[in-house]
Amino acid sequence: MGNSAVPPSVTELIETLSELPGVGPKTASRLAFYLLRGKSELALRLGDALKALVERTRFCSVCYNVTETDLCPICADETRDHSQVCVVEEPMDVLAMERTDQYRGVYHVLHGALSPLDGIFAENLRINELETRIRQGNVREVILATNPTSEGDYTTSYLLTRLKPLKVKITRLGRGLPVGGDLEYADAVTLLRALESRQEI
Amino acid sequence: MGNSAVPPSVTELIETLSELPGVGPKTASRLAFYLLRGKSELALRLGDALKALVERTRFCSVCYNVTETDLCPICADETRDHSQVCVVEEPMDVLAMERTDQYRGVYHVLHGALSPLDGIFAENLRINELETRIRQGNVREVILATNPTSEGDYTTSYLLTRLKPLKVKITRLGRGLPVGGDLEYADAVTLLRALESRQEI
Repeated sequence: MGNSAVPPSVTELIETLSELPGVGPKTASRLAFYLLRGKSELALRLGDALKALVERTRFCSVCYNVTETDLCPICADETRDHSQVCVVEEPMDVLAMERTDQYRGVYHVLHGALSPLDGIFAENLRINELETRIRQGNVREVILATNPTSEGDYTTSYLLTRLKPLKVKITRLGRGLPVGGDLEYADAVTLLRALESRQEI
Repeated sequence: MGNSAVPPSVTELIETLSELPGVGPKTASRLAFYLLRGKSELALRLGDALKALVERTRFCSVCYNVTETDLCPICADETRDHSQVCVVEEPMDVLAMERTDQYRGVYHVLHGALSPLDGIFAENLRINELETRIRQGNVREVILATNPTSEGDYTTSYLLTRLKPLKVKITRLGRGLPVGGDLEYADAVTLLRALESRQEI
């Protein structure tokens, strides 16, 4: 039942949309039927945007951020400090750092965090490339900016052992209370980190 | 800021995804970056599915449901009762009715509900087509199955005045407590309708 009421091309779109993270069958149906309601222009534009994404994007040959050029605009920017490298897990993290409007160094995108249980080992991330990049000299400081999760912390510990012999300054982002947060609602681990990293005022 | 960190094709995809209902800029970014993470096969498949949707679907020439053939499978099905027409707002409503696995009549999709404040008048819906279809005879009963909303109710009232002169049996779906619902949590209007449509047992 129901099958005869939904044409194959609609079913196909619903099933494909359902493969996106956070999109269940209900949301997928809603989106597909929305696109059917005189939104063919939007459907075609979305189709073209997806094709362009696959065809035009690649990884920067230096920092592995997503880019449309061999060297990403940040690596190609001579006004930035190329001796300061901020190591992040994903391209979206670069975006978050750029939003601070203060960081003037460059980046290195690992494309994930170590998670042996999920089969993600050092060789699956851009760690060898980071080591090579630092070995080539000209890097003064490496800022480890992995996510404040167990995988992120594990990745930072691993990177520390790998990069220590290279005699480069290694820092990591401060831990503590998020700005705008409420002490009452802070979890115990965050509060503990905030206590540990307390500063004299 | 931000701009240089995100290539144009990614920005374009994020902006296009944001036009979908219920998809804000944050969700759109998350989806776009998800597709960037080695999911080019999914991105291409989604692009193809969107193109196929636009190219292959059309409206049934009789009931205006979405179909890939001139006559939809339900209208083409000779085992169904073509003298019983269930009038719904959207193609998704056909799907909901079909899920009951009991309805053996056919449909008429209005493609919306009357909402003068939003600029949706009778001529924007498939109401003339419904009237013509009934005038051609062979229709015994029209079941008005618009949504139980103010727009849906208004549409049903309007259809009643339009279809009354055609001397056809007109019914509408029963109102009452939803199955599995809890009396305690039922809103006052639903409870009132349930009281009004109480049946002797």
